[in-house]
Amino acid sequence: MTDIKIAQSVTAKHIKEVASGLNISEDQLEYYGSNKAKLPLSLIDEDQLRKNKLILVTAITPTPAGEGKTTTSIGLSDALNLIDKRTVVVLREPSLGPVFGIKGGAAGGGWSQVIPMEDINLHFTGDFHAIEKANNLLAALIDNNIQSKSKNLGIDPRTVIWKRCMDMNDRGLRNIVAALGGKSGGIPRETGFNITAASEIMAILCLSNNFEDLQEKCGNIYVGDTWEGKPVYARDLKAQGAMAVLLKDAIKPNLVQTLEGNPAIIHGGPFANIAQGTNSILATKMGLSLADYVVTEAGFGADLGAEKFMNIKCRQAGLSPKAIVLVATIRALKYHGGKPLAELTDEDTAALEKGLPNLERHIHSLRSFGLPIVVSINAFSSDTDKEKQLLFKHCESLEVPVALSYGWADGGKGCVDLAEKVAMAAESCESIFKPTYALEDSVRTKMEKVCRTIYGAENVILSNLAIRQLKRFESLGYADMPICMAKTQKSLSDDEKRLGRPENFDIHIREFEIAAGAGFIVPIAGNILRMPGLPANPASDNITIDADGNIEGLF
Amino acid sequence: MTDIKIAQSVTAKHIKEVASGLNISEDQLEYYGSNKAKLPLSLIDEDQLRKNKLILVTAITPTPAGEGKTTTSIGLSDALNLIDKRTVVVLREPSLGPVFGIKGGAAGGGWSQVIPMEDINLHFTGDFHAIEKANNLLAALIDNNIQSKSKNLGIDPRTVIWKRCMDMNDRGLRNIVAALGGKSGGIPRETGFNITAASEIMAILCLSNNFEDLQEKCGNIYVGDTWEGKPVYARDLKAQGAMAVLLKDAIKPNLVQTLEGNPAIIHGGPFANIAQGTNSILATKMGLSLADYVVTEAGFGADLGAEKFMNIKCRQAGLSPKAIVLVATIRALKYHGGKPLAELTDEDTAALEKGLPNLERHIHSLRSFGLPIVVSINAFSSDTDKEKQLLFKHCESLEVPVALSYGWADGGKGCVDLAEKVAMAAESCESIFKPTYALEDSVRTKMEKVCRTIYGAENVILSNLAIRQLKRFESLGYADMPICMAKTQKSLSDDEKRLGRPENFDIHIREFEIAAGAGFIVPIAGNILRMPGLPANPASDNITIDADGNIEGLF
Repeated sequence: MTDIKIAQSVTAKHIKEVASGLNISEDQLEYYGSNKAKLPLSLIDEDQLRKNKLILVTAITPTPAGEGKTTTSIGLSDALNLIDKRTVVVLREPSLGPVFGIKGGAAGGGWSQVIPMEDINLHFTGDFHAIEKANNLLAALIDNNIQSKSKNLGIDPRTVIWKRCMDMNDRGLRNIVAALGGKSGGIPRETGFNITAASEIMAILCLSNNFEDLQEKCGNIYVGDTWEGKPVYARDLKAQGAMAVLLKDAIKPNLVQTLEGNPAIIHGGPFANIAQGTNSILATKMGLSLADYVVTEAGFGADLGAEKFMNIKCRQAGLSPKAIVLVATIRALKYHGGKPLAELTDEDTAALEKGLPNLERHIHSLRSFGLPIVVSINAFSSDTDKEKQLLFKHCESLEVPVALSYGWADGGKGCVDLAEKVAMAAESCESIFKPTYALEDSVRTKMEKVCRTIYGAENVILSNLAIRQLKRFESLGYADMPICMAKTQKSLSDDEKRLGRPENFDIHIREFEIAAGAGFIVPIAGNILRMPGLPANPASDNITIDADGNIEGLF
Repeated sequence: MTDIKIAQSVTAKHIKEVASGLNISEDQLEYYGSNKAKLPLSLIDEDQLRKNKLILVTAITPTPAGEGKTTTSIGLSDALNLIDKRTVVVLREPSLGPVFGIKGGAAGGGWSQVIPMEDINLHFTGDFHAIEKANNLLAALIDNNIQSKSKNLGIDPRTVIWKRCMDMNDRGLRNIVAALGGKSGGIPRETGFNITAASEIMAILCLSNNFEDLQEKCGNIYVGDTWEGKPVYARDLKAQGAMAVLLKDAIKPNLVQTLEGNPAIIHGGPFANIAQGTNSILATKMGLSLADYVVTEAGFGADLGAEKFMNIKCRQAGLSPKAIVLVATIRALKYHGGKPLAELTDEDTAALEKGLPNLERHIHSLRSFGLPIVVSINAFSSDTDKEKQLLFKHCESLEVPVALSYGWADGGKGCVDLAEKVAMAAESCESIFKPTYALEDSVRTKMEKVCRTIYGAENVILSNLAIRQLKRFESLGYADMPICMAKTQKSLSDDEKRLGRPENFDIHIREFEIAAGAGFIVPIAGNILRMPGLPANPASDNITIDADGNIEGLF
């Protein structure tokens, strides 16, 4: 059965029933149909949330198909509910762009999904659209100001770093020349689009504490310089109020349910390779205000997802997970051991053994945070007993608890062993996470600490462009901000071809972007792009709708 | 009181109560909050709807502030309900772009508004966003196909006529060069963005009868030619299914309410100057299935709104209004008589008299449809008795019923006289509208008939580019389609400076666009642009949000 068929085979509870299980009354819900609702920010209880337990799910360096982080998060959450821990799973929203690229959604899989999965994967409650509009209103105001005779701030069009965004895999928009067409079209300039999840507005939404904070952060966005070299901020264009108004509903977390009828909160953006990549602080805090356990995820791999989750999000929100679940698959470990993608279902303990250092490196890196780790093997029917034994023995030798999880095949009851190990780890954890770097460290030191401690790299090499940009950002007073690396998710290094546990490598910073409103610096490593393209056979090829509005071929 | 303060001073009914007044049960509603809902297409009853009465509200050539068509439509609908005619007002959705341009919403005004007006004017239920995504998915698939080695259709990038779209007044996107950045960025080509309301997808949504029709129309979109000169359609890119899936909720009409708690259906796009400009066929048919009267609107002026409403929408849907309400203001007539905008509140019967030929011309043009006409004077407190008498006398001499309407100041009870005159006209109407042209007429004849019969023009002059494009469209078999003129709304001519009733003028067709999926040809007259810009003082300057999420400065 496909994911969508499984999802549609389950009768969903009315969302008010799901809410009522969290003691949320009907009049606090803003419905989007009968299975989705927005939740008011007033549900966040700063005292209560610090008493409850946050579990972070992350992964080893994934194969292109992913390790099943979301599936594991949902299965684990359902399992924790089965063993009487009141749990909410809190996830990031899927991006629409990739849905039409390589087939597949981002709402879990098999019997561990959140529903209605087709809505969640498409427009959902419109949050991405609102982010896009706020982002692009600022862009329109910039070009309008450059064009205007009477209200001109003197922006040098060559310096504008603010890009437009669109939630679409559209390589044609990556680099454009805009404002052509003569006098009425504006002053032509080079610019481009990022995918919406990589927009600074997404990060602002995910890192804001309330409406005022949101508005202020929007105002702090650095858009470019005047001809005299003075920085220009969104507030100089009086853009922040209208931007915040466009985000007034998007800032509210969304309630849905798992296939087992347990509550799920889904809010904020994906893609830790090119963005901060995890759900919003408000969503995580809301989950922690409403339940004893919150299971949340940050990927792709721990090098990107967990690092940013700790050093950016948890540091700013004053949160600390009680345990980290590291998801791995036997298939991916064989892939890291050199086995071709097409042969991963064949037993191959030699390849598995050769791939184990990737897992090892992630465990090593995660231990730097000083929190308990549980390895979760996302089971596939092709996994053999020999392979499983080898992997278990290896985890034992590393002194890390390990569980097989069957969320895809069996939902919550397939993840009870994992849930018990996670609960045991979390309940005995008394530490607070140790950040990888201090905010007072220089930007270069921050990058070095992340690249060495988390990726296992030797040095950080900056391009001439990057050196120039960094000097500028430091002179503007941004040196104390955390960093949000943009790097391929396919390798611990910045070269996607280096699988396993690369050694003796440097990280090459091609350029920087600054997110002065969200409050971080973005070093861009290697060849990573912040606007993806479509593949030769886009998934859209096979999608149709029938006379009754039923979707075929999606997921 | 501002419009938003008035709107917020009223306690809205729960939308299920509004629905229940139309015999729609709760389980047929898809809620978007407690005051908005999507309605299922199954509510359309093809037999029932033909028994009920459609009233079209249109206007004279408007001032920049508009004539109050929407306000009059809402007031008239509330008034018809007061005189015991079960009535639904069916409106087009506002576009987000202009909200941040020149201050003002498009959800009525004063005591004749639809609510929640701030939501309706912002993201509403996400229909525009979905249209944007469907439009831009096709664009991404085109550039992806041009870039692809293995699946290349051989599209000549110089011939691609499909543009991207965005619901934003952003002149910088009007003309761009896309796909720059070297080999990975695609094949560079000239292109641009239209505002979303002007997208062919909006027209397809407004003219579709059901999901299958929607999908088929999307497939028929003509995107450009191969290097060999063969036409390429969206279906060649297998885009239509995914596009229709993106529109699966957007195709459903939206139910809201007037300030007086009467039902309002709002669906589909605005801007009859650059698009077909009226609400969807599905929304109009749904309204007619649910109530005895449907009041709907088409503007800006009757030259654009009413003409397209009849010749495109009613012809395709097999509908015919029972009466046409022509909205005018004394201010606008003085403006057409040469009075400057800043002095329109001063009494000036001479200017009014000089401006009357604009009204006269619209009455004359509308009479060509063979339906009863009622003139509605949208009253302002600055109107003087002398002015009103002059106007009434003039309407009498033209043998057209006229009513003063006070929807802005008094809501429904301010429009009872209008409602009575409209009901009388509608109940005695036994004619079916007479189209301006036959579909079998040549494209040139169609344009001539519209320009002469409706605008009062002499000739239609085509540029060399337009001649070439027309030949191409005719050779592709599109000659039998209706035409959808793009022309300034500020004048009956194509020159926005020619107010009043211009005479001895030609219409200059600069170029054509083709909407092969929606099924019409777009002649573009004069200097009209399909992507607007922002003014020097954008309305966004004054918008803020407070700690509780309340909006200030919007509308």
